[in-house]
Amino acid sequence: MEAARTLGYQVNLIAREMIMQRSSMVGVVTAGFENPFRAKLLSQIIAALGRHKLTPLVMNAEDPVQIKHSLEMLLSYRIAGIIMTSASPPLGLARQYLEGEIPVVMINRASNLPGADVVVSDNMAGAALAAQMLVDAGATRLAFVGPTKTSYNGKARGTGFARAIQRIAKQNPQVAHPVETHMTAADTYECGIAAAHALLKQKTRPDGVFCSSDLLALGFIDAARQHFAIRVPEELQVVGFDDIPAASYENYQLSTIQQDTHGLANAATDMLVDRMDAFSGASRTCVVPIAGVVRKSCA
Amino acid sequence: MEAARTLGYQVNLIAREMIMQRSSMVGVVTAGFENPFRAKLLSQIIAALGRHKLTPLVMNAEDPVQIKHSLEMLLSYRIAGIIMTSASPPLGLARQYLEGEIPVVMINRASNLPGADVVVSDNMAGAALAAQMLVDAGATRLAFVGPTKTSYNGKARGTGFARAIQRIAKQNPQVAHPVETHMTAADTYECGIAAAHALLKQKTRPDGVFCSSDLLALGFIDAARQHFAIRVPEELQVVGFDDIPAASYENYQLSTIQQDTHGLANAATDMLVDRMDAFSGASRTCVVPIAGVVRKSCA
Repeated sequence: MEAARTLGYQVNLIAREMIMQRSSMVGVVTAGFENPFRAKLLSQIIAALGRHKLTPLVMNAEDPVQIKHSLEMLLSYRIAGIIMTSASPPLGLARQYLEGEIPVVMINRASNLPGADVVVSDNMAGAALAAQMLVDAGATRLAFVGPTKTSYNGKARGTGFARAIQRIAKQNPQVAHPVETHMTAADTYECGIAAAHALLKQKTRPDGVFCSSDLLALGFIDAARQHFAIRVPEELQVVGFDDIPAASYENYQLSTIQQDTHGLANAATDMLVDRMDAFSGASRTCVVPIAGVVRKSCA
Repeated sequence: MEAARTLGYQVNLIAREMIMQRSSMVGVVTAGFENPFRAKLLSQIIAALGRHKLTPLVMNAEDPVQIKHSLEMLLSYRIAGIIMTSASPPLGLARQYLEGEIPVVMINRASNLPGADVVVSDNMAGAALAAQMLVDAGATRLAFVGPTKTSYNGKARGTGFARAIQRIAKQNPQVAHPVETHMTAADTYECGIAAAHALLKQKTRPDGVFCSSDLLALGFIDAARQHFAIRVPEELQVVGFDDIPAASYENYQLSTIQQDTHGLANAATDMLVDRMDAFSGASRTCVVPIAGVVRKSCA
């Protein structure tokens, strides 16, 4: 070993892995890099893999050329496993990996795929907490904004919020129900602006809004203030989801439901490593707790 | 080939690369993922590599455990090249790669490393354009905000801005010079807030500020408005650098110098591919043009 160090000898991992028939590489599929929540989660996943001496091969599911080429590459490299952080890649691809006995873990995504493990933030608890935060701040006409059709998270948070408000309304007759739901096309700032235009132009407008992501909430707040001259939080309470860096900017001071990116990444990596040792066994789901962060947009 | 497809045969790239003594993997070193400009650049680099059928191994230079482990891995995997997008990894590491005849390309970073290629945004032109935008909007007391000591970009943009204002002041006696420079610890929103506190509490305060990144500019604007009740752009003009998504948010409408992330990523990948074919030769520098984006913070 001493001699090897002196000579600057480097292990040839390609040769070693050829003998062992398994690489130390893990595919990480994300959908774009510009969503700040996904960027943070990706960062935590790469760090968690590093602690297990696993090397990430990152690919962007939003680029069709890339995803086709990269998935072929991943199979060709005999990767040790794959973590999917987005709803974009079709389940068929995950199935291909599982058929090759390559472990698959999905984050924040529903799956009925036998053998694939799932890690999710506690959307139900988060939505119920958001409902309580808004009602405690005095809101009585509640609305939900999110991609309820296209996104697993959007759907789960919308359903959870509607149920929580229904429960609260039974005890508190001032709280109107059912909740008004505005379905967005995606989880973006621009969709938040569009949602505000749809909801705030009404005669009886909501005074408490739960957005299924912080980006939606930032757009909603800017449009409320600048296009409708509605004061936040005095006339309108807003709660987001994720806790991205901009949520704490002075202009927004967004109250939100914080996802534990560190916890999600660790749980996913641990489950993946377990499966590398023993591939077979029923799918498991790990639910990671959320936390409420109270700032000024709902207080 | 037909039979191979029918049987679902997958090329074993590990074996093939062992024979060819070179992998199709490229190390991409970034510094964190939360800076929106770096996230966008990373996304473009991964896409550009994909178009060349190269697979990215992403690592975060801000995580010391990761960088140590990953760099060993990169050498062990006989990677085809490395792209460094941050000032964080010490040049000694780049030297190690070059000694192993592994091509190195650096983005937005100075290097006197023989054999390493460099791709940079045109900081000088960007700083001169920012100076012209501020003066054209009526500003006469100019200031620069940025990490002039710790960052190659911060230093280049600060120097370029000071020179441009000096040039402009010769023709326009209303423009004061030299420029006031506030050195920040980093390129963050929080540093922008701190810079605003330092510059705006003065008796004679600047009326035109060029920040070396959009994140700094967002913090500067929020602090000016909310802590000093100064109206932007009526009383204070602000120009940023990068053009991150938040620059176009309704609340900020930040005028800025846009970096061409697509151009930077393509140039870096092309230079890397050139070096893979022919490793030797003097270092080259590629300067990628910038563009001014006029929004409301300086107009």
